[in-house]
Amino acid sequence: MLSAIALLAAAAAATPPPPAPKAWEAVEADWVAIPDDELLVMTLAGDRRVFIRLAPRQAPVHVENIRKMARAGWWDGTSVYRVQDGWVAQWGGGAADKAELPGIVAQPPAEYDIAAFDPVHRLTRSDAYSTASGVSADGWPIATDGKAAWLTHCYASVGVARGADPDTGSGAELFTVIGQAARRLDRNYAMVGRIVAGMEYLSALPRSSAEMGFYEKAQDRAPILSVRLAADMPAATRPHYQYRAPGNARFSALIARKENPPPPTIGLGGADICDIPLEVRATPVK
Amino acid sequence: MLSAIALLAAAAAATPPPPAPKAWEAVEADWVAIPDDELLVMTLAGDRRVFIRLAPRQAPVHVENIRKMARAGWWDGTSVYRVQDGWVAQWGGGAADKAELPGIVAQPPAEYDIAAFDPVHRLTRSDAYSTASGVSADGWPIATDGKAAWLTHCYASVGVARGADPDTGSGAELFTVIGQAARRLDRNYAMVGRIVAGMEYLSALPRSSAEMGFYEKAQDRAPILSVRLAADMPAATRPHYQYRAPGNARFSALIARKENPPPPTIGLGGADICDIPLEVRATPVK
Repeated sequence: MLSAIALLAAAAAATPPPPAPKAWEAVEADWVAIPDDELLVMTLAGDRRVFIRLAPRQAPVHVENIRKMARAGWWDGTSVYRVQDGWVAQWGGGAADKAELPGIVAQPPAEYDIAAFDPVHRLTRSDAYSTASGVSADGWPIATDGKAAWLTHCYASVGVARGADPDTGSGAELFTVIGQAARRLDRNYAMVGRIVAGMEYLSALPRSSAEMGFYEKAQDRAPILSVRLAADMPAATRPHYQYRAPGNARFSALIARKENPPPPTIGLGGADICDIPLEVRATPVK
Repeated sequence: MLSAIALLAAAAAATPPPPAPKAWEAVEADWVAIPDDELLVMTLAGDRRVFIRLAPRQAPVHVENIRKMARAGWWDGTSVYRVQDGWVAQWGGGAADKAELPGIVAQPPAEYDIAAFDPVHRLTRSDAYSTASGVSADGWPIATDGKAAWLTHCYASVGVARGADPDTGSGAELFTVIGQAARRLDRNYAMVGRIVAGMEYLSALPRSSAEMGFYEKAQDRAPILSVRLAADMPAATRPHYQYRAPGNARFSALIARKENPPPPTIGLGGADICDIPLEVRATPVK
């Protein structure tokens, strides 16, 4: 009997229960679906797919333009035509080479600011570009100067390219930040989304040595095969993504660990808004 | 006579004097030579040359190790073996595949901090990782928490790779920051230099999807043909670079313009230490 008990104990030891989740790990309920009409899929040559989460609540007019252009297949056959090291990759159709899609708002309102600074998680320390920053309930990085509020230009943020004048762009030409965060674009450009998967297909493109990183030769450009809204793709092949909700104790524990990591790492007491992990995953297949 | 004067005036108008330099532009005297023994040249396959300014005053033991390894040709035939998107590219020889060079200090002192926070240009606003930051007299980005001081991990900074333990690395394996600034490495890793030219040959390498960005297949690695100190190269082919001195009114005007750009751009009142342009140029041929 004693030996039988010993054997049972050994068997139990051989199949331990799964480890308890860490305080900073997401639980299933933390994963929130990105709606199909807020997910843009850009396919580059070589079936390299870039997934962009759109920000319709923050930049509604620009995002509606983008939806219309995607539905019309307007970007198909355009290219990534600018890659400037440490700065941005830029793509789409410019007025010089493609007529604007009829029916879009050619000059949207600026949409450089958002309605309110209302984070569900506020960071401990501020930064050189704002007096406070944090994460909104729907998972976007936001900042304020105490008066206005805006989305922050971090790595993989997607903004609307425009000319040197502060007029808006329509959304026909977009860019993403491929190096150091581009916070000096905050409040000066419309931010319409962020790349949630496939960023490496843009960040690893060859840099152009020409002025501002525009490719000099057409053959250097990376062809865009198509840009589609997930909502417009066949259900069978439609991609689904989820973001991690920020307004809970697990997310707070994650950020606390970033701001003050456990020894032997020396913590610096804070973390920059652009270093906050805004996790996204492909929706698990049930 | 009147017509002769008019002709002279017309000729003068046709060849106007060069425009007065802007208040934020460097003058010739601002360019300071980087000493030959503080410039490292890494040549990748395809004659892609990466130039690294070393930081011997900030990390003397690590830099002396690096000089010895370069003199011995120790890196020749190693590779860039890790490229993690938004994080780092890493290269050199690991203990697993190459015996350490005899005569180097296998376990240098940490050199994670520097002697003093003594900027010649101090930034207006602090950030999430320090209470003050600025640029040292010899052109390095530095920060402090009011007690210690350190070099900041910005885009293109070069650090010494090490294991998970806080022990130091020898310098045989190095990394550079290819995405968002990696400030959480501040005070936890030895920073030994920064890439001053050729960054695009590391930042545009294909990303690895494997854990931590290590290439899974040997053939994915980017071969390193040689790493040499400029001082050890033949005088006829030796490269020369200069950095822009920060301690003067022109540099201050440059940063003031970053912190508060002229309208119509909306200024945010500050600039992050990793956004401060630390300009470097190839020494002009006389």
